[in-house]
Amino acid sequence: MIKENCGIVAAAGHDITDILYHGLRTIQHRGQESAGISVFKDGVKVRKGKGLVHEVFDQKAIDSLSACKGIAHVRYSTTGGEDSHCYQPMMIHTSFGELALAHNGEIVNAEELRKDLLSRGGSLRTHSDSEVMLRLLAENITLKGDVIEGIRELMRILIGSYSMALLINDRIYVARDPLGIRPLCIGQIGDASCAASESVVFDSLGGRMSRDVRPGEIIEIDPKGFMSHKGISAPNSGHCFFEWIYFARPDSYIEGRIVYDVRRKVGMTLARENPVDADFVIPVPDSGRAHAIGYCEAAGIPYAEGLIKNRYIQRTFIMPNQRDRETAVNLKLNALRPVIEGKKVILVDDSIVRGTTMKKIVKLVQDAGSKEVHIRVGCPPIRAPCYLGIDIKNRNEFIANKRNVEQIGEYLGCDSIAYISLEGLVDAIGLKKEKLCLGCLTGEYPLKIKGERMRKE
Amino acid sequence: MIKENCGIVAAAGHDITDILYHGLRTIQHRGQESAGISVFKDGVKVRKGKGLVHEVFDQKAIDSLSACKGIAHVRYSTTGGEDSHCYQPMMIHTSFGELALAHNGEIVNAEELRKDLLSRGGSLRTHSDSEVMLRLLAENITLKGDVIEGIRELMRILIGSYSMALLINDRIYVARDPLGIRPLCIGQIGDASCAASESVVFDSLGGRMSRDVRPGEIIEIDPKGFMSHKGISAPNSGHCFFEWIYFARPDSYIEGRIVYDVRRKVGMTLARENPVDADFVIPVPDSGRAHAIGYCEAAGIPYAEGLIKNRYIQRTFIMPNQRDRETAVNLKLNALRPVIEGKKVILVDDSIVRGTTMKKIVKLVQDAGSKEVHIRVGCPPIRAPCYLGIDIKNRNEFIANKRNVEQIGEYLGCDSIAYISLEGLVDAIGLKKEKLCLGCLTGEYPLKIKGERMRKE
Amino acid sequence: MIKENCGIVAAAGHDITDILYHGLRTIQHRGQESAGISVFKDGVKVRKGKGLVHEVFDQKAIDSLSACKGIAHVRYSTTGGEDSHCYQPMMIHTSFGELALAHNGEIVNAEELRKDLLSRGGSLRTHSDSEVMLRLLAENITLKGDVIEGIRELMRILIGSYSMALLINDRIYVARDPLGIRPLCIGQIGDASCAASESVVFDSLGGRMSRDVRPGEIIEIDPKGFMSHKGISAPNSGHCFFEWIYFARPDSYIEGRIVYDVRRKVGMTLARENPVDADFVIPVPDSGRAHAIGYCEAAGIPYAEGLIKNRYIQRTFIMPNQRDRETAVNLKLNALRPVIEGKKVILVDDSIVRGTTMKKIVKLVQDAGSKEVHIRVGCPPIRAPCYLGIDIKNRNEFIANKRNVEQIGEYLGCDSIAYISLEGLVDAIGLKKEKLCLGCLTGEYPLKIKGERMRKE
Amino acid sequence: MIKENCGIVAAAGHDITDILYHGLRTIQHRGQESAGISVFKDGVKVRKGKGLVHEVFDQKAIDSLSACKGIAHVRYSTTGGEDSHCYQPMMIHTSFGELALAHNGEIVNAEELRKDLLSRGGSLRTHSDSEVMLRLLAENITLKGDVIEGIRELMRILIGSYSMALLINDRIYVARDPLGIRPLCIGQIGDASCAASESVVFDSLGGRMSRDVRPGEIIEIDPKGFMSHKGISAPNSGHCFFEWIYFARPDSYIEGRIVYDVRRKVGMTLARENPVDADFVIPVPDSGRAHAIGYCEAAGIPYAEGLIKNRYIQRTFIMPNQRDRETAVNLKLNALRPVIEGKKVILVDDSIVRGTTMKKIVKLVQDAGSKEVHIRVGCPPIRAPCYLGIDIKNRNEFIANKRNVEQIGEYLGCDSIAYISLEGLVDAIGLKKEKLCLGCLTGEYPLKIKGERMRKE
Repeated sequence: MIKENCGIVAAAGHDITDILYHGLRTIQHRGQESAGISVFKDGVKVRKGKGLVHEVFDQKAIDSLSACKGIAHVRYSTTGGEDSHCYQPMMIHTSFGELALAHNGEIVNAEELRKDLLSRGGSLRTHSDSEVMLRLLAENITLKGDVIEGIRELMRILIGSYSMALLINDRIYVARDPLGIRPLCIGQIGDASCAASESVVFDSLGGRMSRDVRPGEIIEIDPKGFMSHKGISAPNSGHCFFEWIYFARPDSYIEGRIVYDVRRKVGMTLARENPVDADFVIPVPDSGRAHAIGYCEAAGIPYAEGLIKNRYIQRTFIMPNQRDRETAVNLKLNALRPVIEGKKVILVDDSIVRGTTMKKIVKLVQDAGSKEVHIRVGCPPIRAPCYLGIDIKNRNEFIANKRNVEQIGEYLGCDSIAYISLEGLVDAIGLKKEKLCLGCLTGEYPLKIKGERMRKE
Repeated sequence: MIKENCGIVAAAGHDITDILYHGLRTIQHRGQESAGISVFKDGVKVRKGKGLVHEVFDQKAIDSLSACKGIAHVRYSTTGGEDSHCYQPMMIHTSFGELALAHNGEIVNAEELRKDLLSRGGSLRTHSDSEVMLRLLAENITLKGDVIEGIRELMRILIGSYSMALLINDRIYVARDPLGIRPLCIGQIGDASCAASESVVFDSLGGRMSRDVRPGEIIEIDPKGFMSHKGISAPNSGHCFFEWIYFARPDSYIEGRIVYDVRRKVGMTLARENPVDADFVIPVPDSGRAHAIGYCEAAGIPYAEGLIKNRYIQRTFIMPNQRDRETAVNLKLNALRPVIEGKKVILVDDSIVRGTTMKKIVKLVQDAGSKEVHIRVGCPPIRAPCYLGIDIKNRNEFIANKRNVEQIGEYLGCDSIAYISLEGLVDAIGLKKEKLCLGCLTGEYPLKIKGERMRKE
Repeated sequence: MIKENCGIVAAAGHDITDILYHGLRTIQHRGQESAGISVFKDGVKVRKGKGLVHEVFDQKAIDSLSACKGIAHVRYSTTGGEDSHCYQPMMIHTSFGELALAHNGEIVNAEELRKDLLSRGGSLRTHSDSEVMLRLLAENITLKGDVIEGIRELMRILIGSYSMALLINDRIYVARDPLGIRPLCIGQIGDASCAASESVVFDSLGGRMSRDVRPGEIIEIDPKGFMSHKGISAPNSGHCFFEWIYFARPDSYIEGRIVYDVRRKVGMTLARENPVDADFVIPVPDSGRAHAIGYCEAAGIPYAEGLIKNRYIQRTFIMPNQRDRETAVNLKLNALRPVIEGKKVILVDDSIVRGTTMKKIVKLVQDAGSKEVHIRVGCPPIRAPCYLGIDIKNRNEFIANKRNVEQIGEYLGCDSIAYISLEGLVDAIGLKKEKLCLGCLTGEYPLKIKGERMRKE
Repeated sequence: MIKENCGIVAAAGHDITDILYHGLRTIQHRGQESAGISVFKDGVKVRKGKGLVHEVFDQKAIDSLSACKGIAHVRYSTTGGEDSHCYQPMMIHTSFGELALAHNGEIVNAEELRKDLLSRGGSLRTHSDSEVMLRLLAENITLKGDVIEGIRELMRILIGSYSMALLINDRIYVARDPLGIRPLCIGQIGDASCAASESVVFDSLGGRMSRDVRPGEIIEIDPKGFMSHKGISAPNSGHCFFEWIYFARPDSYIEGRIVYDVRRKVGMTLARENPVDADFVIPVPDSGRAHAIGYCEAAGIPYAEGLIKNRYIQRTFIMPNQRDRETAVNLKLNALRPVIEGKKVILVDDSIVRGTTMKKIVKLVQDAGSKEVHIRVGCPPIRAPCYLGIDIKNRNEFIANKRNVEQIGEYLGCDSIAYISLEGLVDAIGLKKEKLCLGCLTGEYPLKIKGERMRKE
């Protein structure tokens, strides 16, 4: 399973702590390692801890954070490790007061910026790229003497993906990198002006999304509304296609496209591009469900829940010490013999990275008596690492590394396998190719990365 | 939401602790309040605690329980309250050694048995009916001088539902009440002989179910196999229909019927009994999914995942202090506007008890712009309490109490509502009516309950 | 170090929870393993846990127990082991309501009573003798139909030491065994009538002790006062001398004698019975301090704190993995070179059981440059086990087993050693010999113990 | 009670983790708020937490820190508050690797240094003066390109008290401020070269103290020994007299004087300067014991332990909700009536700051029936705040503020009160007045503090 990246929420209003708390719970799928809330209340307060949002915060903690302005964060680390000092929001004291940061993304030139900072006599508490951002931001704002100027200067030197929320004393700012790689949108919940990684935060809390934060834009958020500032601009955007395909919730809108619909269209395209005769279309739960529905719709083959997922096996998992490690998949997933036995089935999943889980699923389905197993995948083969916020780092682990599609099918042991085409994927999303980051599929990235090719604009 | 009842696992083999642990995780859906494992290892050891199985046991705890024989339990209390002394397995010292019990069910005459025991000078630690069983069992085995005789005597005086596992020093016994109300089956996992509440335990751990424990049967479980003993018998059985409709996992076999198939047939019957024109069939996730698929199949209407569930909102839930409590449903469920807007939709759920959640779902769907909302329910109206292990106790809370179907529809605010017929339900399960307990639907129970009618045999 | 036995508190008044809490803290020295409070408040509530009183109860827990009547317990287990079910007060449900017990003492015939109970079909949760008492009490009260009669019947069959507090629904009873082995006294704190193991509870909470509970007496405690009931009587008493010498706090009165004074007199007698020339008298802190002051007073030799104790090394203690285990004593105690160097010193301690710590202290003092080390011990050699509540069980571990005083001195490596005489000890306490239990010194016990001699009355 | 300041340990040897752990336990009296250990082991590792040393570290934690070099810290905060980021050792990443600091002391110009650092664009995580030291040290070492030069530069700009241990990658340095205000000494434990706040660390672990670190000295500590570097020097020293009078353990040597002896001499001087007729001398336990022994020696009045302390009431303390808060003292201390009744007693304590506890003790003793109560205090009246590491900050709280000695006696309600003279105190310590910091007694400090007078050199 691909691990998900981070999520952020920011809010300014009458009493925004429950928005931050429930907002985080709504985007919990974006990070389960730690959660944190920072508010302004006689100074900037931060509470954060390891675990799910409801594990980190109890009612007493929420009450103690009651405030008018705040930012919040759920985290799956891409860099920085397990160190509790890396939990976000991070807070520092500066010449202009207190500064807290919640960051979603990954900085490509973090190491260079870090070394530069240290060589000038600076020091850092952690290995996280967020702390480098925070220190440089403090320096820039101090030296420029202006908050917006300081943020803009930071954006000028950062290379990478970042959607960030800042709490500077009692003021809130959000900003998005010039390519708009990670999502970020603004909207209204009751009397509060808010920002969130995904629009579903607004729906879930009875609010209304206004719009996406534009690539390169800086916005100050106030109970009275939003004040947009020019940040820095780029000729094209580079929205991460994976948000639509796997990361984001099906009910989120990103750049005007609702995720469920993109996935359904991907499924329809899959059916058209690579038709195959079968008795049932079976999704790999839960991520392949919308794609599978689209496939059924286009192919006219019935939908079946032939793989049953154990809802209670999420994170912790003690391995059996006696029996085969293969067992592990059976504990998470079980194949439904009466649906599968003697049948031709199509398994639909959103993507395949390493292929280890899919290999076990194929065996599971075959052991349940399937006649034929056909795999259809909602995203082209992943062949290159992501440097911009997704935990797809190690080229050697990719199943598509040094294997063509036919060889992948052989490795998985299925009767046929087909991936959606790059064009099919881009069409389903409905944005021009040059508006998307497709780096992990094409090896061409929308910004300069040492040792990799850059996308032609 | 209907709270689920308990689950048990028992195993005898070379090293069975991981079977107990993973077995419990597999049936975690049957109880999330506490978990416990009891093994024989230089005497009977018990470890139990509040929370999910993986919260109660870490690797160190599992290692410390390494043994050849043991029983295990997950619990949702129907009686006994929050008292930690009620967590199971419960263990006592007796004249014949140590005795541990894991129990799934509910004893109708527990209060009478309890009073009788106390009036003879006995005493009890808890209010749980399981402790009464345990004390009486100790007394009966001591006085009879024989384990099987003692168990049989206990079964003679108990009125109610019980599937139980006993660890008596280094021997394991399981037994099921004469009506077979709660499920219990036996099978093989590797070299181990096992029993479990649901057959999915065997599938998930790479084993194979042998058969259901017969109503009224006592079985001793040994690494070498199963030794069946006559317990007590009844003219007919009384399997709880709710196990198929809601409780059990879709991939479990109960009395030879796989749950998924029963639910799918219920959906097909629903479509035939009460057809309605619509654009989409939308399941209430996750419980209504199999019923909805059956409905689609029979009605030829496309399936859509129009309600998105937040996987991370399970148990703990802090209520918003400002905004409407209605919000709570939005945090758990969100309606997918692009699927629903301007459409006629059929919502399929397994059952409706109090109707409060369904009322909010209807509003959610209507707020997302639906043209029509039709509800189809996989189980006839619940009109009477359950006394046999399910948390459906308070007649006054049932939506079907003092409301006919039309009035229920009005209350829920939908365009139409229809329930499956009793006959349709019984047919879908495929057992004769007199083999099932349908008490909560008909008010007629398969055994004597004070103030209620008994089923005619 | 000899581990201390248990302590109990009981109170009836307007709001007695803080009396129970602070009362327990005052007698924390009597047991550090677990603490518990049981009150009547819409039924009998119990809260208990592992650790010191302030670790088990926080303000919220205390608030939740606010009540008019209750009993409390601190425990050092003499039987029953680490099982959390053994923490006290223990509570059971009976024919006459709820019954909670807090017990200080040890039952000599517990095993016989236990076997008898099980053979009649009864069962037990733990191995603790307190549970046997509780079950038998429930039986006796039920069968007699009268609380006082039931308690009296229990006292008739118990052989051993017990000071106990009972909460039976909303009534409190305390009782003391017919020999009065463990202490128990009653008194007033504000508007509340109370009982406690030691009188210091009354002093510490601004109250006033009334009197000791008489051996064999049963007292009902009510906000209005105390109602004495005849329990059972014995020709003589058997107060444990060790309470004055080591267990009890210096500021407690037991049977009319204040502990500090007894210890001071012991020290004076030591000086007279076995004079020796020296520069300083040094107490082994903290237990030998009062004895040492008495010694100084009688001998006219100056007092010095030549051994410094680390206050923070109490319970948990991780051993150095490299260096000598001898080091451990240095961490707890350090010898003050400038006081000791070149000097003749007398070390005074309350008692010596195994001698291992004293051997290390002698070395510590000699390493600090002492010219001579003379040991004076406030209690005659311990030669027999205690069966009545003190953790002195294993004859083989006693230094005085198979060694005469001279040999003990050789083993310890000191220049001289002398114990107080039995007569000197008895005189210092000021009660007749036949009023005391001196079993561990004489091998003659005040009641029948299998394999041991009984004291001649 | 005066809260104690911090303590540090550093060690280099074969395996030094148990030295750090047990060393911290030995100086636990110097700080009970948090504990931390930092070692070099494939980089600098830090573990720290809230509570006593044995609460923060279990055997597993100790094992995980097994290393050859490390520093450790116990903390009572004088600035920085409860923030867990203030726990020490603090660690940062720098241009020259990892840098960890453990600091005992207080920086007078911390706020100026902090502001200066922030105004240059720097940022800080905490309010602690230790972080300012750490950041400036990183900057200085980076810019100077040399560790010793960097430390020296830091010492040049710091004004205040500091004894510090540094772990810079795999090297250890300790340094002491030019006035030597807080203690710090070096010595050998087995094969390890060590430094510690108090010499008792060496005694307790079977080692040997070599000497005090000299004021202004920098020492690199290596398994092979100590390399001394010139730091910066001052014409005179300013050792805090309070270390001898109250803070340090009685068995520690500071600047060649053992604490117990200084206290005993203080007691003797008290007896000579202000004699009074009495039956007993009673120490306020535990801090007044050595002073009282000295008093007895000089005055020929018997010593008595007339106040009994509850050893288990240390830190947490829930106040009685009903009864007088006065009760609180009774829970910690109880007066021994048989010793006190009808007697003239002298109470000896080390010092009086606010007088609130002493006032309650006087009442306690009088309630126990004393005929006369005379107070003798081992340190002159405290009239000015400490800026150099002791929590005596608020002039308004001092009992001696706006009260002469006679008025203090009236306020406390005693029959007489006398303080030792400044000269008597200085003589007892045995160092010249200009070698000591007596700021809180005289209002004249050994260094420049805004708004206060500086000592004439």
